[in-house]
This record gives sequence, C-alpha cells and structure tokens, in this order.
Amino acid sequence: MAPVDFEAFVDELANVSGTTILPFFRSALAAEDKSGGGNFDPVTEADRGAEAVIRQKIRAMFPSHGVMGEEYGSERLDAEFVWVLDPIDGTKSFISGMVGWGTLIGLLRNGQPCYGMMHQPFTRERFSGDGGSAKYRGPGGERTMRTRSCAGLADAVLYTTSPRLMVEADRALFSAVEEKVKLSRYGGDCYAYAMLAMGLVDLVIEANLQPYDITALIPIVEGAGGVITTWDGGPAQAGGRVVAAGDARVHAAALSLLQAG
Amino acid sequence: MAPVDFEAFVDELANVSGTTILPFFRSALAAEDKSGGGNFDPVTEADRGAEAVIRQKIRAMFPSHGVMGEEYGSERLDAEFVWVLDPIDGTKSFISGMVGWGTLIGLLRNGQPCYGMMHQPFTRERFSGDGGSAKYRGPGGERTMRTRSCAGLADAVLYTTSPRLMVEADRALFSAVEEKVKLSRYGGDCYAYAMLAMGLVDLVIEANLQPYDITALIPIVEGAGGVITTWDGGPAQAGGRVVAAGDARVHAAALSLLQAG
Repeated sequence: MAPVDFEAFVDELANVSGTTILPFFRSALAAEDKSGGGNFDPVTEADRGAEAVIRQKIRAMFPSHGVMGEEYGSERLDAEFVWVLDPIDGTKSFISGMVGWGTLIGLLRNGQPCYGMMHQPFTRERFSGDGGSAKYRGPGGERTMRTRSCAGLADAVLYTTSPRLMVEADRALFSAVEEKVKLSRYGGDCYAYAMLAMGLVDLVIEANLQPYDITALIPIVEGAGGVITTWDGGPAQAGGRVVAAGDARVHAAALSLLQAG
Repeated sequence: MAPVDFEAFVDELANVSGTTILPFFRSALAAEDKSGGGNFDPVTEADRGAEAVIRQKIRAMFPSHGVMGEEYGSERLDAEFVWVLDPIDGTKSFISGMVGWGTLIGLLRNGQPCYGMMHQPFTRERFSGDGGSAKYRGPGGERTMRTRSCAGLADAVLYTTSPRLMVEADRALFSAVEEKVKLSRYGGDCYAYAMLAMGLVDLVIEANLQPYDITALIPIVEGAGGVITTWDGGPAQAGGRVVAAGDARVHAAALSLLQAG
C-alpha cells in the first residue's frame, strides 16, 4: 500500500466538519440534554451533523478503518487504523457563544496516537501534530509549535476546564498542584492543550475525560515537545485523569503531587 | 456644537488599538508583574501601547474630554464626556494565548455610560451599544444584539471570570446563586457580557471589578435589553460587585440571593 497523505485527508475532514458546524454557532439552536436529568450536557445538531460528515468521508476513503466518535459510537476498534472523533470539544463554550471549542480528529495506529488535529472553524485555526512535530495554521500564517521551558510549578500557568468536573478526591489532589503554580485558570477545553503546544501554557490537568476528548491532542502535545500521561503516568489515550506539561520537569512535579493520594 | 459621530470615532480607536495589540498576541512577550508580589497580574507592552494610542487620538480630537484608563490613570474626570478604557480586558487569557479578551472603550456623559464597545482584534469582532440598542459586527456580517428570555435561575447559563477572584463572603453569596442555575462556567471576562448581549448567556456575576472593566459593557448590555447593576442594585459603572442578566426576572432572582448576606 502506498503511503497515505493523512494530513491532506484530515484537512478535508476539517473543511467539511467546519462547514457543517459554523451555521449553528451563535444561532438559536435547540440544545438537547442527553444526560438524562443529571449534569447539563448539551448536544447539538452541529455535533451530530459534523460527526456524520466526517464518518461518511472516512468510510468512503478508508472502509477498513475503525471509528470511535462521541455521537455515533464505535466500529472496528480492532482495525490497524482507528479514527477518534469529537466534533465539538467544548460544547458548553459552543452553546454559550464562546470561542474556546474545537473539532478533534485523532488517528490511532495499532492503538497508538499517530496524528491529531484540533480545528477551530470560527477563528480559522488548525493545530496539528504527529508526535514528532506540531504545526499551527491560522489567519496570520503557518508556524511550528514548540512548548516552552518551565523549571517548576512556581513558574507554571495551569489550566483546567473546571474543577467542578472532578470528584472530590481528585479535586483535592488538583488543588495541591493549583496552590503551587503561578497562575491557575479555568475553562479552555481543547484550547488549553493547543496553547500548551504553542508555548503559552505550561500545565493542563483534567479528570473524567473520554478517549475522544484527548486522543487527537496527544500527537500535538508530544509533537511540540510536551509530555502527556494519565495522573498515574500511563498512556493518556484511554482518557480519565490526564496531565499534560510543556516541560518534563513540570510534568514530574505535578505527577508527584497528583499521586500523593 | 454639531452632534459628534462617536461611533465612527470609536471604530477608529478600535482600529489603532487592535493594530498595536495584535503583534504581541501569542508572541514571546515579557509579562511583567505590577502587583508587587501579590496576585499574578500581568501587564504587557501591548496594554500600554494600545492605551497610549487611544489616548493620543482622544486628546487630538476632543482635548476637553476626560480619560480614565487602566494603564495611565485619570485626567479631567469632571468633564462632560469621560472616556473609560481597558486596552486588554482579560490579560490572563491574553498571555495564555486564549481568545477570551477584548479592548473596552466606554464613554460617560455627565457620569452616565452613553456608548461602549468591546473589540476583539484577533477574531475581528466588535460589540457595541448606546443603551438603546446594541450591535455586533464580525467576519460573518453585522446584526442587532438582543438578550434572550429566561424565566428564572433554573434555566440560566451563568458566567464568572473566576470565583477565586472573590473574597470568601462574596464567594459564598455567589455559590448560593451558582447552586440554582442550569450551567455555571468560569472564564470569559468581557466576552461573557458580550455573549449575554447576544442572547447566549443569561447571567454574569463578578466582584472586585474596576470602573474600566465594566463601563464600556453597560451600554452594550442595556442596549441589548439586559439589566446590569451592582449586587446592591446600584449603578454598575463604579465597578466592584456586578451582576448582569439578559432577563429582568433572572436579575431579580440573583439579586435577592446576592443580598442575603
């Protein structure tokens, strides 16, 4: 089999999903609650429409590939290549009109993340990586992304989407890290990882992630020189409790506090 | 005196400040700490440069007007017209590369907010209002902004920049509201008010605001049909503890809880 230009294909997936999503952004879309009366968990037509068009393109181009998506479940997870999709990561930002959301398109090869893109169609920004390098393309042009050096927690800018998403025991461990950093900020979703890859954020700590929340971001963070694992130091692609750092020293310092429990 | 086209003038202020700020966004700018060892409070060259060019334009066009700005202090606050400026509201988002920041340009006439704009030069969005109407201009065109109907807290989407910015007593009052809303989100700064004006957010509650954090947003929120006051129900332009709602019923419900202390 000739090598496939996954990068061009993912660009095309981003094009079609962006075109599907944008008309719903900041329009009077009816948010629907799929959590069954628990936490508010909006799902939009945009979400479903975007995943459907991405899946259709994958099926047409790579019928043997597997797909795991937030909206339409999993198929052929034992395939060599498995696509991992979150059409709108940050739906709560999306329904509030805020810009901190993105489309996540990840690719696993034999279970390992090998390529990922975060696409923000409103700002026309694409953050992508293959584990070896990472790249930004936006209205101002294209550039290589590199994480920045950061000696320790005292110098670190930390992001988490919201500590309210964590169970109490996890929140206590998170707070132990939060107390030591220079600046702690809430919100961000996938943007926090993109800014870590760009060298503007030093640490992202989250819990309760799904595989499709994080898989696409792993080759971007690692490609930019960062470290991303679970709080236990294991591979991050299964989701759960995830810690990403731009500098391995910050990652090690955070891990030691997160494992104190 | 012939009536002045403040709208065109504010557009010009937004143009020059945006041009000044953008080269610093996501670049390796040296953030400087002006808090003297307390909370991390980054100030950038972008902040100062943008306020300087805005002040220079105001001085040239309206030498009798007063100006109050975050970076360069106050002059002629007893003038009929006083400009209230925050070149980068959301500096912590700005230095982290996140898009949730904006330039705030407000105008007081005899102490009352009469015109305001929030400008986001990276996304090329302008939110403006004069207390009677409010308008959005962005890459997708121009439209009138109206807040949305919301019957009560149980249906409300709430934003605050961070509860960590509140003293403990205020945080307890805030939490009493937070427990009753449909969705509570952190982050946002000026964008939260803009999205309230656009009808996508129902409630914004903050504390410890400066006059320049809020003055420009008042004619936008009110122009879109919203209500904005202090937690005590007084005028918001002095800053401090501020509550904004798109629907007067939500404002009243929040106020009754915020005044419980």
